[in-house]
Amino acid sequence: MTVCILVSPLEASDPTPTDGRLQVVDPGSPQVSVLDLGVTRGDGVFEVLGVVGGHAQAVDAHLSRLQNSAMMLDLPAPDLEAVRAAVLQVVALSEPVPEMLVKIVLTRGVEDAEPAAATCWVIGLPAGDHEEERRRGVSVVLLDRGYPHDISSRAPWLLTGAKTLSYAVNKAALREAARRGADDVVFTSSDGYVLEGPTSTLLARFGTRIWTPAIAQGLLPGTTQAAAFEFFATQGLSTSEVLLRSGQLADADALWLASSVRMLAPVRSVDGWEVPVDQELTAAANAFLLGRVE
Amino acid sequence: MTVCILVSPLEASDPTPTDGRLQVVDPGSPQVSVLDLGVTRGDGVFEVLGVVGGHAQAVDAHLSRLQNSAMMLDLPAPDLEAVRAAVLQVVALSEPVPEMLVKIVLTRGVEDAEPAAATCWVIGLPAGDHEEERRRGVSVVLLDRGYPHDISSRAPWLLTGAKTLSYAVNKAALREAARRGADDVVFTSSDGYVLEGPTSTLLARFGTRIWTPAIAQGLLPGTTQAAAFEFFATQGLSTSEVLLRSGQLADADALWLASSVRMLAPVRSVDGWEVPVDQELTAAANAFLLGRVE
Repeated sequence: MTVCILVSPLEASDPTPTDGRLQVVDPGSPQVSVLDLGVTRGDGVFEVLGVVGGHAQAVDAHLSRLQNSAMMLDLPAPDLEAVRAAVLQVVALSEPVPEMLVKIVLTRGVEDAEPAAATCWVIGLPAGDHEEERRRGVSVVLLDRGYPHDISSRAPWLLTGAKTLSYAVNKAALREAARRGADDVVFTSSDGYVLEGPTSTLLARFGTRIWTPAIAQGLLPGTTQAAAFEFFATQGLSTSEVLLRSGQLADADALWLASSVRMLAPVRSVDGWEVPVDQELTAAANAFLLGRVE
Repeated sequence: MTVCILVSPLEASDPTPTDGRLQVVDPGSPQVSVLDLGVTRGDGVFEVLGVVGGHAQAVDAHLSRLQNSAMMLDLPAPDLEAVRAAVLQVVALSEPVPEMLVKIVLTRGVEDAEPAAATCWVIGLPAGDHEEERRRGVSVVLLDRGYPHDISSRAPWLLTGAKTLSYAVNKAALREAARRGADDVVFTSSDGYVLEGPTSTLLARFGTRIWTPAIAQGLLPGTTQAAAFEFFATQGLSTSEVLLRSGQLADADALWLASSVRMLAPVRSVDGWEVPVDQELTAAANAFLLGRVE
């Protein structure tokens, strides 16, 4: 059974105690208004956490990113402790499974409501089986994201780097990948830099160095990438954020897509050309990522 | 009272007769699933029609654009006759007012539902009072949309030219305009061409010529712009789609933003510099637009 909890009121400025904010609801019944700006305008933000062996992973990192996304959209500051309590309660009420995910959705709420109030829910969902992708890897295509790599600071209204509900382009990119016979996408900037996947962060190994594209390019800071960097550092590898041109990918000793539920998926081909898959290092990194307990 | 009608099933391929597809629901109660891809991913499309004196305007043009947006998102082909019937029924059931609007929302439906089924509703809403904007005009700022003007054909996965539910950037741009003390936005391409507003089409008069930015730049074909072009043609003005550089705006004899509910709003300033407002021509155009009866 899927567990869903509404968090209301969401605003950190509201005096309601945490307990009074959480309401378990039936996700099989409609819970969202046809006037909610989340659905009429994709006007909101979200997070997806992995839950392994009953432990929600990287909760602080996800809450911090949620807060940051909300700020970028001028949404009211969410009560992170209420959201955290909802995440833990969803996990506690869910049937124990080896892996699941928890999604946090936060919208600007019902248009023109008086008083204005954000909408927020937290829901537990099946994680799917990612064993094959973690081991065998994924094929990716490079797709132009249309923006120059330095757009973010110049045009904050483009919301690059915020995890918004306006994900239609990310979904369309994944359909384009499928049309080309590939599993996933790595976006490139219009001026030739490598950015990120529609739902993942890129990592690249060049010898003893592990690189990820610099988030200053308007990328989402990867929570799983950050944890993977911790692991790689323990293996004597250096880690850093860089500007990476798409032509440089051909020289990589390994590439991965990092995300909160799939963890590290090695990239086994880019636009049809093969990429070496480092089975041993990948397996060790995923064991580390799956074993995280806060 | 707000009238809302769910259209289900939406797919044109379904044999259900039109009558059996429409269900009047209470928009004050939640009608949308927390798992609907419309709200979790902004994965859907919409249209907004003006209704003047009980007449829904440019219904064919809006349905045709809805169908086109759906196609660009690989959504199932909607039953346009059912949507049309819902629009007319919403208008018929609504309290008669001089002006209102009808919104059509179409999403990819509940994630992983078996069988997959799109979600669609049609809702009547107050139009607000746009008299002042139609007469006195609006101040606008130019904001970079981040894309080069020729991105559309090269990167269809960016969904430029589709009216998707992923409108967070459009809303953020309007907040940026408000921060700068302006009423509205005209987007420009990263290579200096003038595009469109977040919810409107730009029209410019240069002497006896009326221009609008070419939709091949990934712009939404404007239903109100098209009707305004019909009017301007009756006034002996020539009309055409062009590539317009932002520098050229300073030489315009008049600028307007066209949209389905506000109709033509003259632009009275761009980034703080004044633009001539042609009161007489604007009033005549708006009288024509408001008087349309199909």
